[in-house]
Order: sequence, then structure tokens, then C-alpha cells
Amino acid sequence: MASRKRSRNKPPSMKDVARAAGVSQTTVSFVVNQVADAGIPAETQERVWEAIRELGYRPNAIARGLRNRRTHTIGFISDEIATTPFAGQIIQGAQDTAWQFERLILLVNTGANKQMEQAAVEMMLERQVDGIIYATMYHRQVTPPEGLREVPAVLLDCYVADGSFPSVVPDEVNAGRVATEYLIARGHTRIAHISNVDPIPATHGRLEGYKSALADHGIPFDVSLVRAEVSDVPGGYRAGLALLQRSDRPTAIFCFNDRMAMGVYQAAAELGIAIPQELALVGFDNQEGIAARLRPPLTTLALPHYEMGQWAVNHLLALIEQPDTFANQPPIQHTITCPLIERASV
Amino acid sequence: MASRKRSRNKPPSMKDVARAAGVSQTTVSFVVNQVADAGIPAETQERVWEAIRELGYRPNAIARGLRNRRTHTIGFISDEIATTPFAGQIIQGAQDTAWQFERLILLVNTGANKQMEQAAVEMMLERQVDGIIYATMYHRQVTPPEGLREVPAVLLDCYVADGSFPSVVPDEVNAGRVATEYLIARGHTRIAHISNVDPIPATHGRLEGYKSALADHGIPFDVSLVRAEVSDVPGGYRAGLALLQRSDRPTAIFCFNDRMAMGVYQAAAELGIAIPQELALVGFDNQEGIAARLRPPLTTLALPHYEMGQWAVNHLLALIEQPDTFANQPPIQHTITCPLIERASV
Repeated sequence: MASRKRSRNKPPSMKDVARAAGVSQTTVSFVVNQVADAGIPAETQERVWEAIRELGYRPNAIARGLRNRRTHTIGFISDEIATTPFAGQIIQGAQDTAWQFERLILLVNTGANKQMEQAAVEMMLERQVDGIIYATMYHRQVTPPEGLREVPAVLLDCYVADGSFPSVVPDEVNAGRVATEYLIARGHTRIAHISNVDPIPATHGRLEGYKSALADHGIPFDVSLVRAEVSDVPGGYRAGLALLQRSDRPTAIFCFNDRMAMGVYQAAAELGIAIPQELALVGFDNQEGIAARLRPPLTTLALPHYEMGQWAVNHLLALIEQPDTFANQPPIQHTITCPLIERASV
Repeated sequence: MASRKRSRNKPPSMKDVARAAGVSQTTVSFVVNQVADAGIPAETQERVWEAIRELGYRPNAIARGLRNRRTHTIGFISDEIATTPFAGQIIQGAQDTAWQFERLILLVNTGANKQMEQAAVEMMLERQVDGIIYATMYHRQVTPPEGLREVPAVLLDCYVADGSFPSVVPDEVNAGRVATEYLIARGHTRIAHISNVDPIPATHGRLEGYKSALADHGIPFDVSLVRAEVSDVPGGYRAGLALLQRSDRPTAIFCFNDRMAMGVYQAAAELGIAIPQELALVGFDNQEGIAARLRPPLTTLALPHYEMGQWAVNHLLALIEQPDTFANQPPIQHTITCPLIERASV
């Protein structure tokens, strides 16, 4: 097997290069590592590089990095984006943007295991990545490994409490406002919100946007129209049933996510309430396999996964290439709008 | 901002280490790179390592690799596993297994872009990964980049025509046989197969398994009961309609995948044919969001994504740690069984 033979042949060593170039190993090491004050004549340096090329000697990563000034790779630490079928477009957006600038994304998926995160950062620092993106599957506050402070870094779909890292996250408040205003614009004034019990930015932000839209349009906030439940189909079903069995039931519901909206579809079907004729619904996530498949298809908001991935890489490259531009300002805390996807549930 | 200051301080250099240890840079370089024949006294070596630790000097990756003999990272090149919501469990299985052996998976998702694949392999070789896994989102024949032959490598969910790389893929033929025998065991003899038009191993293998199960049970193969269609819901619907409108319609259908089975549900509903009472169905993929959600829930086969990820890492580590064990045999071509998931459609 040619492959086996080749892979078992010893790769050329520094010694081989030294022999071929007629110099000492120290000289090769200095040339490869571009030790500027070693005083090696240009002609000798050229001979060493020639031997390296001829033998196919692979100078180590750091040496290459020094020679080209950069290693042209971006580290990407994710909790579980690569393994769960929810936010893969974050990686796609980062990857497409990186490749456009001739960078590779080097990804480690840690399952949010702290030890693995630590090891991943260490390994990336040793391998001299140009910078690191630290990303989470859903918008949340994080405490990234300390090593992240040693290189240019951007947080993606997450942030630190003190804002000491640049960050990009979805604009949850605006999204809550857009969803609610969309319903108001279609004549609804009795609008419920099915919220989530998890104390995460999406929960607080969307509720805040909902309230602010009502206030802006002079609709009094009725706390009994907000129900928090576990954010899956059964939770949506329970909240939907409770809201729709009231004599003064809402004519529209803005749901924390599409799965909860799916539960409301079930509750409405049971109660014989027609969507959208008697009940308008807006979901969130534009979740594949759910939003477009419900009957009627669900109007919802999409998370800007791809766009956040793009932004994170663009900003990281700016930090790497033009550090002075950002030296005298606090790290940017960027938010991205969640687009409304109009279907047939309103 | 403490973080900014730190990231802009120059990291300690080899020169700093040399000064602190009271030796020349050459000596530091030899110690770090463990040049065995440089004749540096053990006491001096220890002093250099002490200075390295005190200053927090980061010897480069290759040096560390040499010192620890290995870099303890495994390269993982994927086409689009990390970005599409289908086969993420491949990564999960690989990651869990690698971590169990204190290895990190370093992933590059290439979107099947040949140039990016090439760059990914080059980058991984430069960064001295212990070995590389080359993985695809679905079972297929591949032509991996040449560089893959320079290190221990395993193909995951794919293979090369000449078998010159070890490989792990799902056992498609067995799966087709299991699905068909499951239906035969429940009394069906008029069993159709809705196949896929793509000329891929899953198409051929599942059809072959279907035929062989029929033959084993003395049921004559009726070519009119096999229909190939585009492997999505509408294709399944068309094939289902064609099969179910016949006067001698089948009592059971083994579908190429769950999406096609979903199309058959629609066709059956239109024709007033009850599942499972009048028509038994077996799908494939156990696709999240479909198989368990259909009414009645779909009996199907699952792809062994997690298990293939596990096997690939285990085998790669064996190739790395015990190369002699595998030196005199052709690369292993391993298949893994697809488990049957019983639900209510049969």
C-alpha cells in the first residue's frame, strides 16, 4: 500500500535540511525562526529555504506564523453548536466570512465542559491562532476561560457582564417589539405573551419589547395576559389552554418560541378556535421542521445566526489587522435585528 | 481595560528565557526542541525549563509535541456536518471518545470546498495533529486530499474506491434486510420499496438488502413494487400514490427515508388508507422532527452516527499508538449496524 509506506517514512528533519544546505542545525533553526539578530547572510538564508522546499521539510507552525507574520487561522470555541441541530448557521456564517479573507476556522466543540474549554484555549494559543471566537448555542451570559484574554477575541451569541470582551447577540428587545407591533398593526389590542421560565436574555428581552410596544400604542399592560412556562410544546399547550379558556381570551399571542406556539396550535384545535381567523400567533426561532410545517404555517422571527457569525469574524479580523482603531474605546457590544418571517398564522 | 493591556504586552521571547537562565538562545532552542545530541548538561536543561515556567514562555506547538511525544489533538475535516442539522452526532461521538482519551478534536468544516479541504489538511499537518478523521454528512465515496496520506487517517461515513484508507460506514445492506424482514415477520408478503434516484451506497445497499430478505423468505421479487423517486416528501408522495392506487396494492412499504415516508402518509390519507391497519410503513434515518412526530409515529432505522464517530476515533488512536499491529494488513473497512426503532406504523 503506497499510502502506508509513505506515512511510515520519516519526514525530513532539521538535520536533513542542515546537511542539504551545508550549514549547521543552529543556522537552520535561526533561519526558520527568523532570529533577526543571528547575523546569518542572506545568501545562506536563501540556501536553507531552498533545501527546505526541496526536501518538503515542514517548518513548525510557529515558525511559519512568524515568517508570514500570521498563521491565518481563527480559533472557534463552541459549546454545542456543531453537535445540535439548532444554530449551525452560526458556524456557516463564520466559515464563509473567514474563507472570503483566506482564513480557516479551527473549531473545538466543548459541550460546555469547562475543562475542555480550558484545554481548547491552551491548544489554540500554542498553535498561534490569530484570534479566537467564543460562541454559544443560545444567547447567554458567560465566563470564558482566562486564556481568551491573551489574543484578540470576540464573543458570539453571548457576552460577559462587565462588557470587557466585544460581543454580538440578537436584539431580543427589538424582536419582542416587532412581533407585538406586527399584531397591533393588524388590529389586535388584546395580545398575550407566552414567556419562558428560564432567566435568560431572550426571556427578559422579548417580554420587555412586548411591554414597550403596548406602551407605545397606548395599550395598557395586563399582567394576566403573560404566562411563563417551560419552553417546549407541552408548556405552550398548557399556557395556551389557560389563556384561551378565559371568557375574555386574547385574540393574538406572541410566543417565546415556535415549539411553544406548536403547543398553542394543539390547545386551539382542542377548543375549536381557528388560526388565524379567531387567534393570531407569532412564534420565534423560525425553527426548521416546525415553523413552516405547522398548518397554517407559522409567522415567526428568525435568529440572525448566520449574520452573527459573519459579524464576529469581520470584527475579529478588524481587531487583528487594525488594533489601534479599537485601542481607546470599550469593546463593542453589538446587537443584530431578528427578521420577521411572515407566513399564515396572523 | 486590563484585557487589552495584557493582549498588547509582548509575550516572553526565547531571548528573555535565555537571559533569565543565563544561557545562549541556541541552548534554549536545543532544550526546547529536545535536540538529543546537543550535549546540554541536565542541570542546564533544568534551569532553562525553570525559566520557561517562571516567565510563562510558550514553547511552540511542535516543540511541545516533541517533548510530550504527541500533540494530543486529532484533526477532523468535515464537509458540512457541523453546519447542517442532520449528522451532528458524528461529531458528538468523536468528541466524547477523544476526550475520554484526553485528546481534543480540532474541526474544520469545509462545505465540501476542495480548496478549503486542501488548506485544512495543510494547516493540520503544520500544526502536527496526531492524526486526521475525514468525515462526510452522508455515506459516500470520496477522493480526500493527498496530504491525508501523510498521517494516520480514518474515513468516517465515507470510503475510497481502492480501500487504501481505513473507513467506517453504516451497513446499508443489512439495514435493508432488517427493515424488510421486520415486515415479513409481521405477515406481509406484498412489500414495496420506495427507493432514491441518487446513485449512492444507501440507495444500492438498501435495495439489495430488501431483495435479499425477500429471496431468503421465498418471496418472488416484483420489480413493479420498487419505485425510485427524489428523496424528499413530494417524491415519497408521488411514489406512494402510484403504489397505493393499484388494485393489487402492497400491504407494506419500506421507504428510503423518513421524508419519503412522510409523503406516503399524505398519499395514504388522501386515499383513505389507514396506517398501520391497511398499510405498514418503515422509514429510515429516525430523523428528528419527523419520525417521532408523524401520526402514527414512524417505525424506522437510525443511522449509527454517534457510534461511527466513536469507532473512527478509537481506530485512529489505535493506528497512532500501535502502528505495528496494523502494518501488515489492508486498511480496515468497517460497517456498523443501523438499529431498528419500533414505533407504531407497522
